[in-house]
Amino acid sequence: MKEKLEVGILGATGMVGAEYIRMLANHPWFKLKYVVAKRTVGMKFRDAKKGEWVTSYEPPSEINDLIVQAAEPEKQQADLFFSCLPTDAAKELEPLYAKILPTFSDASAYRMEPDVPLIIPEINPDHWSLIKEQTKRGWKGFLVTGPNCTSIGLNVTLKPLNDEFKIKKVVVSTMQAVSGAGFPGVPSMSILDNVIPYIKDEEEKVYIETQKILGKMEGNTIKPASMDIAAMCHRVPTIDGHMESVYIETEKRITPEEAAEALRSFKGIPQELKLPTAPENPIIVREEPDRPQTRLDRYAGSVPGMSVVVGRIRKGIDDHSLRYTLLSHNTIRGAAGNTILTVEMFYKEGWLKL
Amino acid sequence: MKEKLEVGILGATGMVGAEYIRMLANHPWFKLKYVVAKRTVGMKFRDAKKGEWVTSYEPPSEINDLIVQAAEPEKQQADLFFSCLPTDAAKELEPLYAKILPTFSDASAYRMEPDVPLIIPEINPDHWSLIKEQTKRGWKGFLVTGPNCTSIGLNVTLKPLNDEFKIKKVVVSTMQAVSGAGFPGVPSMSILDNVIPYIKDEEEKVYIETQKILGKMEGNTIKPASMDIAAMCHRVPTIDGHMESVYIETEKRITPEEAAEALRSFKGIPQELKLPTAPENPIIVREEPDRPQTRLDRYAGSVPGMSVVVGRIRKGIDDHSLRYTLLSHNTIRGAAGNTILTVEMFYKEGWLKL
Amino acid sequence: MKEKLEVGILGATGMVGAEYIRMLANHPWFKLKYVVAKRTVGMKFRDAKKGEWVTSYEPPSEINDLIVQAAEPEKQQADLFFSCLPTDAAKELEPLYAKILPTFSDASAYRMEPDVPLIIPEINPDHWSLIKEQTKRGWKGFLVTGPNCTSIGLNVTLKPLNDEFKIKKVVVSTMQAVSGAGFPGVPSMSILDNVIPYIKDEEEKVYIETQKILGKMEGNTIKPASMDIAAMCHRVPTIDGHMESVYIETEKRITPEEAAEALRSFKGIPQELKLPTAPENPIIVREEPDRPQTRLDRYAGSVPGMSVVVGRIRKGIDDHSLRYTLLSHNTIRGAAGNTILTVEMFYKEGWLKL
Amino acid sequence: MKEKLEVGILGATGMVGAEYIRMLANHPWFKLKYVVAKRTVGMKFRDAKKGEWVTSYEPPSEINDLIVQAAEPEKQQADLFFSCLPTDAAKELEPLYAKILPTFSDASAYRMEPDVPLIIPEINPDHWSLIKEQTKRGWKGFLVTGPNCTSIGLNVTLKPLNDEFKIKKVVVSTMQAVSGAGFPGVPSMSILDNVIPYIKDEEEKVYIETQKILGKMEGNTIKPASMDIAAMCHRVPTIDGHMESVYIETEKRITPEEAAEALRSFKGIPQELKLPTAPENPIIVREEPDRPQTRLDRYAGSVPGMSVVVGRIRKGIDDHSLRYTLLSHNTIRGAAGNTILTVEMFYKEGWLKL
Repeated sequence: MKEKLEVGILGATGMVGAEYIRMLANHPWFKLKYVVAKRTVGMKFRDAKKGEWVTSYEPPSEINDLIVQAAEPEKQQADLFFSCLPTDAAKELEPLYAKILPTFSDASAYRMEPDVPLIIPEINPDHWSLIKEQTKRGWKGFLVTGPNCTSIGLNVTLKPLNDEFKIKKVVVSTMQAVSGAGFPGVPSMSILDNVIPYIKDEEEKVYIETQKILGKMEGNTIKPASMDIAAMCHRVPTIDGHMESVYIETEKRITPEEAAEALRSFKGIPQELKLPTAPENPIIVREEPDRPQTRLDRYAGSVPGMSVVVGRIRKGIDDHSLRYTLLSHNTIRGAAGNTILTVEMFYKEGWLKL
Repeated sequence: MKEKLEVGILGATGMVGAEYIRMLANHPWFKLKYVVAKRTVGMKFRDAKKGEWVTSYEPPSEINDLIVQAAEPEKQQADLFFSCLPTDAAKELEPLYAKILPTFSDASAYRMEPDVPLIIPEINPDHWSLIKEQTKRGWKGFLVTGPNCTSIGLNVTLKPLNDEFKIKKVVVSTMQAVSGAGFPGVPSMSILDNVIPYIKDEEEKVYIETQKILGKMEGNTIKPASMDIAAMCHRVPTIDGHMESVYIETEKRITPEEAAEALRSFKGIPQELKLPTAPENPIIVREEPDRPQTRLDRYAGSVPGMSVVVGRIRKGIDDHSLRYTLLSHNTIRGAAGNTILTVEMFYKEGWLKL
Repeated sequence: MKEKLEVGILGATGMVGAEYIRMLANHPWFKLKYVVAKRTVGMKFRDAKKGEWVTSYEPPSEINDLIVQAAEPEKQQADLFFSCLPTDAAKELEPLYAKILPTFSDASAYRMEPDVPLIIPEINPDHWSLIKEQTKRGWKGFLVTGPNCTSIGLNVTLKPLNDEFKIKKVVVSTMQAVSGAGFPGVPSMSILDNVIPYIKDEEEKVYIETQKILGKMEGNTIKPASMDIAAMCHRVPTIDGHMESVYIETEKRITPEEAAEALRSFKGIPQELKLPTAPENPIIVREEPDRPQTRLDRYAGSVPGMSVVVGRIRKGIDDHSLRYTLLSHNTIRGAAGNTILTVEMFYKEGWLKL
Repeated sequence: MKEKLEVGILGATGMVGAEYIRMLANHPWFKLKYVVAKRTVGMKFRDAKKGEWVTSYEPPSEINDLIVQAAEPEKQQADLFFSCLPTDAAKELEPLYAKILPTFSDASAYRMEPDVPLIIPEINPDHWSLIKEQTKRGWKGFLVTGPNCTSIGLNVTLKPLNDEFKIKKVVVSTMQAVSGAGFPGVPSMSILDNVIPYIKDEEEKVYIETQKILGKMEGNTIKPASMDIAAMCHRVPTIDGHMESVYIETEKRITPEEAAEALRSFKGIPQELKLPTAPENPIIVREEPDRPQTRLDRYAGSVPGMSVVVGRIRKGIDDHSLRYTLLSHNTIRGAAGNTILTVEMFYKEGWLKL
């Protein structure tokens, strides 16, 4: 009997790949068996990652010694695969893997497919059941996706507020770290002493993904939420951590105190199940007037990088509106960590078998 | 007969002082006669500025050789004084100067006094007449103020949009440069690789100053505008240039094209009078998806730092809302430049004499 | 019987104080009993640190609940005190503490006193015996100092090279992080997009401290080393971690391979004694052409921040010279960590009692 | 008769290309006729530069309207060509242009060819005569190169010191801006909050180019200087401006005062001829302890970016050694500006005709 689930990573040498490697290196339930990449096939992982690996983390030798493989799903026997592929590669390869085994992806390629769940484990775990629809594709496995890094932080905070106060409108302005663009990503000439008020397709993703994430399962489809959202996305010279300042309007009266309480007390299935990667608090509320701050709060909480830190909860323009600021770690909660937590939930809940 | 108006600067050695010095050094109408500061009285300006002068600009020797004076308005014979004092010093000293001669200030101390104009020359020049009310204070001079740096950039863009589409609501998120906090200002430990979502009193200033700036003169008072404004202010690691991303809701239908046209064609008295510090276009509209950018656009236009650059004009959530991003140079249009332009207008219009 | 030594910190709320707090919070041998500071006397530590505490680390409540005390050595019963006071305060207060109990300081005030040891535990542990000379001052305690943050990183690498190849000349150029200047320290306006080729007194400290650190105990005095050193110190926009690029000339022939071996194999008493804060390797040698890098390597090694990372070991101009680059964490190995390691050694070796 | 020389630029859309465009836009002697690039052939220059043009400078419409051409020297009738091509393209294309007309290049491809001059106009103008040797290649034109950006700043300062004090040894440590790596160049993930102690081939270039630049024409070859040089090159998070801290040893006794005088009084042919791009002072000496600084001094002097700013002139280790720091603008004096000045000198001196 296997002690741990055997897993692989598609796109292992990239920036999000590095977070997967770090989080899987000592994972109690998963054992990394395959690292798949394109340009470094045949190399040891320790060499393959050179040049792209702009982190201080050094994997253990059992990972460093893995040989990078090409994407050949039929030859790779694992319990499941993680994917953090670039969009085009994801488009091509993820169905090939999902055809054979459970595949969990950060990539944007299939997020909006009607039969593909877009999961934040604390928010919409019940969307898992969409995977049954995928049997119609003739797949033996299935594909589950995680949202865009900016959508995740936002939705973690919208969920409890929407549940309690019914949100009608969201105006959100983001200040996103350069790691969100991958490597080499944003040239230093473009961002030192600068802010760029544009990230391709990001505002659209925030809008459309939120409707799906906060949507309701009705039968075997998701009925989208119908919240007004105006997103304005900016790249700023920070390394990790996406800050988002949010203005909401609600149907019910809302006070900063009530909002803080709703955010602070929010928990989900991962917390109930005490999953290994579940932070004790999905949302940490800070009272100081000048928090969250990117560098100080991006690793806050019991599982570094998995909590969304909220602060500056204050009145909007009247008693049906509110302002607040959130910070979430874009490559952990915003990517690798969210997906690993999703898989932990699937495993514990018994959803890995179709 | 004097060829040029003789002027002085209160707070000459500070960060905004440096911009005044630069802009007055070769000004066709003004001659700098007095530099007033507190801790360096008696020193030559060239020495007084050391340590605080974090700019590459080096004043001409006729300014460098000026002896720094204490604040003694009765001994200082000038046509007018500029003030960029810290708030507390402004509170104490500006009335002493205004008692004697025309005083134009960037400081926040008296901005919201009912009889003190809060001027952006292109926006609310008619507010000048408030100064007549100040004769009731027994002053021979008067006090005119300029708005907060963040308010200025915002209001330059709100004005033409409000005139044409009648704005009901504004949600604005700012990304402000460190020079806005003066010197020493923001510690480097606080801002490298970081965003701080808090600037003391800034959001309140944006709200309240806007009501006054966009208010209407009725008799001898200003009737405030009554626009809903939710501001969210952030400090980011840039040196100069405040970026603001704005969401507005309007009474009339609005399209991005109409909005762009209203912004692009906006002109004011300074442009009509061709004042020396008036930019040809108070607002420059960029079409590229990724502009304005802080480092690339802060000096745009015919008078560097005096134009507000607007871009990313796009739909809000429906046809009564709009999103856009603006950039304005916080120590030029946002402080020294705006005040110098105000004085130029007062001079040319003959408002300097009560 | 006390299970742990009771210790206090002078200057607990500063930037280096924060590292002491973090490193002492779970220390197996020490228990923090007193936090001493000047402007926050009577406040709980959790409140006292606000504003200055630009780190993500949050102390446990037994430390956060400590009441900040004034410097009153006669009322404070502890086994020893750490000091990270500013120079002037150190000058006044450290003798008052040393008069009563063992005091270990990062401050520069007494480093060059002939009877005060200047210790890097791996380098010159035998200098401890100087403290006996301090009985002549009529002290019941004693004072031990640690070197400047730049000197520490440099000397850790010079020691093994000097032992084996006899160094005649050192030319060192440093690129130092802003945390080295404390808080508020370097204004952001002074360092964003900038390098400052000057740090007050730093080059002199590197020179003179090195002569003492690498000097030999002869009887009851230290005979200084007599190495030529030309230091050139720069402040760069990094948060933590001092990089130093070093050129040395040696009496004996030297090759990069031999130098790497000497550095890699270097160990000291802390490693022999397996002290809690001793890194497994005082020096980590990297082979890649582009390492060490500040952000990637400052926490390298078994005790984060305690190892000096060396790379780019290459020929100088001939076979009696060498170039290399080192990185050391300025507030850990360069301050708090080095002193804690010193105390661990004193304790284990039985040198705490005069 | 043509009023101005007609010139072209090879590699016009790159980072150095942008400086050429800016400096040639209003040049009194040159008229830009051809912009040559690879991936944007057939596009208007205004469109071709998009994406790569990370500068606030906007060319006049007569340049913006130029159609980007492929490299077809035989079809392009001009008086001379500038080249700022990438190395590989330079290797291939520069000889094709030099075969036909005078070609002046920043690229490294042919710098060390024995018959190709490597010119800094103030330092080694007499090396121009090497071009006669190129007739042996059967060229009707010729090829003149400019040194690496780091070599230029260094050599401008070494020249007067070597002339007066005879330099034996140089240890130089550089802190280089990201613009030196072109666009996209250094990824932001690699340099934010970081220093990289490695720039490929840079240290070797500094060494070998200096021997040629400071070498002497003997007959029709250059006899290299034979100075010991140990260079240590670093990339730091600054946008423009290379700082270099230098330690030298000299045959003759040297004092900081004498060194300052030698540097301050240094002039060359460009100053004598009052060439349009010649700075009044090739070297500006600052007396303050904390200058030069990258952001404050990179545009110092009468022609912005063309002067090398020197400061911190202080004793080395004895009276035959010296330390100092220099700053030079890497894309102006270090590339485009130096080459334009070279061409101005060639033109005025009548060296453009073989």
